[in-house]
Amino acid sequence: MSADRHITLAHGNGGRFMRELIDTIFARHLSNPKLDVTVDAAKIALSPDLETVITTDGYTVQPLEFPGGDIGSLAIHGTVNDLAVSGATPLFVTLNVFIEEGLELATLDRIVQSLGAAALAAGVKVVAGDTKVVPRGEGGGLYLATTGVGQRARGQGLGMAAIREGDAVLVSGTLGDHGTAVMLARGDFDLRGSVLSDSASVLSLTLAVGETPGVRFMRDPTRGGFATVAHEIARATMFDVYIEEDHVPVRPAVRSVCDILGYDPYYLACEGRVVAVVAPEVADEVLALWRAQPGGEDAAQIGSLIAGKGNVILRTAIGGTRLLDELEDDPLPRIC
Amino acid sequence: MSADRHITLAHGNGGRFMRELIDTIFARHLSNPKLDVTVDAAKIALSPDLETVITTDGYTVQPLEFPGGDIGSLAIHGTVNDLAVSGATPLFVTLNVFIEEGLELATLDRIVQSLGAAALAAGVKVVAGDTKVVPRGEGGGLYLATTGVGQRARGQGLGMAAIREGDAVLVSGTLGDHGTAVMLARGDFDLRGSVLSDSASVLSLTLAVGETPGVRFMRDPTRGGFATVAHEIARATMFDVYIEEDHVPVRPAVRSVCDILGYDPYYLACEGRVVAVVAPEVADEVLALWRAQPGGEDAAQIGSLIAGKGNVILRTAIGGTRLLDELEDDPLPRIC
Repeated sequence: MSADRHITLAHGNGGRFMRELIDTIFARHLSNPKLDVTVDAAKIALSPDLETVITTDGYTVQPLEFPGGDIGSLAIHGTVNDLAVSGATPLFVTLNVFIEEGLELATLDRIVQSLGAAALAAGVKVVAGDTKVVPRGEGGGLYLATTGVGQRARGQGLGMAAIREGDAVLVSGTLGDHGTAVMLARGDFDLRGSVLSDSASVLSLTLAVGETPGVRFMRDPTRGGFATVAHEIARATMFDVYIEEDHVPVRPAVRSVCDILGYDPYYLACEGRVVAVVAPEVADEVLALWRAQPGGEDAAQIGSLIAGKGNVILRTAIGGTRLLDELEDDPLPRIC
Repeated sequence: MSADRHITLAHGNGGRFMRELIDTIFARHLSNPKLDVTVDAAKIALSPDLETVITTDGYTVQPLEFPGGDIGSLAIHGTVNDLAVSGATPLFVTLNVFIEEGLELATLDRIVQSLGAAALAAGVKVVAGDTKVVPRGEGGGLYLATTGVGQRARGQGLGMAAIREGDAVLVSGTLGDHGTAVMLARGDFDLRGSVLSDSASVLSLTLAVGETPGVRFMRDPTRGGFATVAHEIARATMFDVYIEEDHVPVRPAVRSVCDILGYDPYYLACEGRVVAVVAPEVADEVLALWRAQPGGEDAAQIGSLIAGKGNVILRTAIGGTRLLDELEDDPLPRIC
């Protein structure tokens, strides 16, 4: 590694500095038998008996490190979770890194180490990567993009098309933790809080219930939060999503921050939760399976799907109802 | 689409504006039966008889549009080419888009259209994507990241390990066109030129020769240029890479610009060229196969591998020799 303790443009030019950066940070923390940093395309072994799925996501969260996580572990969790909620087991990940000139090498090192640890914990291998350095002022510190490949049983029937009138809407845990933790970590508000991001792999949650008959659809409520998933369900099915506000698990600290700042936890990103639509007769079984898993302790049925016009309706704690609109303005940029 | 003709932060928040952006630009230009913008993970069909390879790259080229290409087609070509030189046929691509607040929608539309056309021409399907919007001043206009999945015959033997002493070093066309075209397009220098980027899929070139016995190794000389590929070969094999300068195809306009500005075309990125190492007895056959393909007209043998210490040696046109050093300083940031 060069004596300079910050990223320079030369770290991105394909030459010696870039090779040293890759060797000392990326190869060190991400090394696994599948990562060969000298090839342009990595071979991946897939089972011919399963079907293969692929997903991709970009990450621009600010600050790069926040209570309960950082952009590195978040990038693994986000991609693993998109595969997990599709009923797949995540296997391989590719990583793109856009680094702004001037980023401290120590920060990059911590984040890549965290990313490697999250990948190991989720059972995925980082098999290919690319690094670009952009000039100071053009990069926001660090952006990541990850693509994940997983496999699942052929003909696995999860999806919007399986949803039926009367189905139950479940969440695997509290809403709004990640968005609130990141917002507080930015220090834009004169608020202190002890809210941790929920950033985590949901694989144990999805594997626990993915093959339970009656489970129709799963999704992780990230950007745009639960409300956005609810609108996707409503729009695809034209049922109304009817939510009982006092059944929705929200941490008191999250609720307080939202009350003070005028945010609504339904729109805040989670990064370690699952929303599931299930047949009403299996709702209790799914909740019991989730509650037995780490991260599923607060799982709850929060509503159901009723005949309607594709609206999302909230029955408030005091007994009235209001429409939960589709998100329009951006409450929180760079939250994920 | 909103009446605003520029990207706003709300286009990235997961809500209605983002959905409209995806529908009106991304789904429109990239639509294919494999792209379902409502699922988090896309199913991809792979042949169980072939082996699967994956690659990923980020793109930050500035300006976003340049003579001979743009960041959209470049992102497809770069990823397709990494798969092609590994001996694979590219099949599926995922796309990450980081858009800076304020980017003109018309620019984004042209670039995504170009990306879609390049994907169609290369025979790859865009199967998954993600869009993030970063605040004005934090994004350099547009960054892309693409991941590609391809397949090739099992046990296909291309790679550094196959290289032997005495092998010939071939290039499929002129060096330095892309780097020069982008540099001129920036207008930093008071030079006008008619150099076009070589940005293109090399798939027809690699398919033409990939199964020819005696073809050992292929790579596309992108960031860091031919010199960086030569150093990778030298370092991996510990042979010297011996280059005959007057055999190296360089366009007169590229040579003129390099002479004036003090650049060396060996270090400039190409985005539609192949470097191959082949057994000497098949060099002419490979050159003939390349020259019969569009984009391969200027193919040439430019050197060979000799016993040595892992150096890259240039025999100059006037008969002397000099070492071609590994790239250290960055001649051109944001070239790819």
